[in-house]
Amino acid sequence: MERAEIAIIGSGPAGVSAAITASLRGKPVLLFGSKDLSDKIGKAHTIRNYPGLPDISGEALRAAFQRHLDAMGVTVTEARVNAVYAMGDYFAIQTANETYEATTVILATGVVQGKPLPGEEEFLGRGVSYCATCDAPLYRGKRVAVIGSSPAAEPEAAYMAEVAGSVLYLPLYDGDPDLPASVQVLREKPTAVTGEAVVTALHTEAGEYPVDGVFLLRDAMAPTQLVPGLEGSGGHVAVNAKMQTNLPGCFACGDAVGLPYQYVKAAGEGNVAALSAVEYLAAQKRNTKE
Amino acid sequence: MERAEIAIIGSGPAGVSAAITASLRGKPVLLFGSKDLSDKIGKAHTIRNYPGLPDISGEALRAAFQRHLDAMGVTVTEARVNAVYAMGDYFAIQTANETYEATTVILATGVVQGKPLPGEEEFLGRGVSYCATCDAPLYRGKRVAVIGSSPAAEPEAAYMAEVAGSVLYLPLYDGDPDLPASVQVLREKPTAVTGEAVVTALHTEAGEYPVDGVFLLRDAMAPTQLVPGLEGSGGHVAVNAKMQTNLPGCFACGDAVGLPYQYVKAAGEGNVAALSAVEYLAAQKRNTKE
Repeated sequence: MERAEIAIIGSGPAGVSAAITASLRGKPVLLFGSKDLSDKIGKAHTIRNYPGLPDISGEALRAAFQRHLDAMGVTVTEARVNAVYAMGDYFAIQTANETYEATTVILATGVVQGKPLPGEEEFLGRGVSYCATCDAPLYRGKRVAVIGSSPAAEPEAAYMAEVAGSVLYLPLYDGDPDLPASVQVLREKPTAVTGEAVVTALHTEAGEYPVDGVFLLRDAMAPTQLVPGLEGSGGHVAVNAKMQTNLPGCFACGDAVGLPYQYVKAAGEGNVAALSAVEYLAAQKRNTKE
Repeated sequence: MERAEIAIIGSGPAGVSAAITASLRGKPVLLFGSKDLSDKIGKAHTIRNYPGLPDISGEALRAAFQRHLDAMGVTVTEARVNAVYAMGDYFAIQTANETYEATTVILATGVVQGKPLPGEEEFLGRGVSYCATCDAPLYRGKRVAVIGSSPAAEPEAAYMAEVAGSVLYLPLYDGDPDLPASVQVLREKPTAVTGEAVVTALHTEAGEYPVDGVFLLRDAMAPTQLVPGLEGSGGHVAVNAKMQTNLPGCFACGDAVGLPYQYVKAAGEGNVAALSAVEYLAAQKRNTKE
């Protein structure tokens, strides 16, 4: 697979803005996100402080962003990114089905709403996982619980059912999950993961389920979990005014880098991050030539 | 005069965005700028990276900003701000005709294009001035040169003609200045201010003119010249991620705080500056109650 010059993770206002500016500067981008761009925007009733678009509905702003991407010829790659590894002069971007490569990465992942589940951080890598496709082989014949934040988690739960001995599925959303009959859907709110050396049980408001693994399939992951070695600051990614993170070639923007959570602030930062990535690529090219 | 809670200096994308967000948060603003909002935008051919408004002309973007201000009930106060003084718990904002008061100030003044005139900084306060209305009385009966960046400087030159012994006017723009007959218009590019203890001459490409005072009436002043005590950084105003300057209650945003000079970056920062000002006002109110 060809290595992209710029990969952007997230298709909210920050990611969209970064994609537009990078494209204008002649850099085709690999934009990971959702066909809907951003659920949060789509659900917003009226947005009144995006300058130039007074009193616009969330749906209309999302449509305007989509038209802008279309005009620039940018398409969204629909894949949940599970991990980003700094490999020296490039980044490896792991999704459920494929690993992509990019010279620079712009993190526009938004913020993860809500706290981690008690036990989640403690048992991460010892029974807790964020990627069913990656870790399913470890649970062949075992008992697994899958917690899905949105219907996007269902294909991973279905795949898990082919491998694991038993699968419990806890949807954190309304609507009927489309899953194989072998998957047991539990309409219960998960409350904790417990175990000793490794995970032994998932707890809910309603009871306790003995399991060997718990898969948390959220739409967004905290960027500092997504990118090993990335420096955080008070729950956000630490950046300077150029949106540079501590990892050379890795930039961040939007809600992920801090308050206030505002559309135009995110869009402005996406623009800055893209220009910084373009500058970084130019400097790298100069260094290679020397 | 009533003290404003928030004064915004500059009506480009940063100032407009700050005004919109502050108004939405229930803070009526005093917005200093131009009826045209921003010359730079109006003259832009096509703007392609303002997310949501693909391929918009500069004129159309300016019109969209104006409609947004109209929708929020924000009007522009057309006055050139000559100085902003931090007075402790408020700011005094000096214009040619009036001094305004505000609890917080948001500097969205853009960047001053071009370098200072040789001798300008050396003789500032010793024959060089930025405000005709303020300093005219010092030049009663004397010889004065007025350098005007735009027609907005003409009323100040006309006022000067009522006071000074003689007035040379050097327009840095096209078109015929509308000035009293007693003002001598010189179509020459100024090159330097010279003198000894005080100014004695203005030099141009074409010759040397003995004068006692030189008034430089630019549309924008460097914010660090505008606000005594304001900390700069590499030619820009030093701010943190909340757009706070070193002066409590004084915020800055847009081109004035640094590269890249981009519309959506400026708009994003204006939004952040306004929210920080609102937060500052709330904290001040809490402190007063205690």
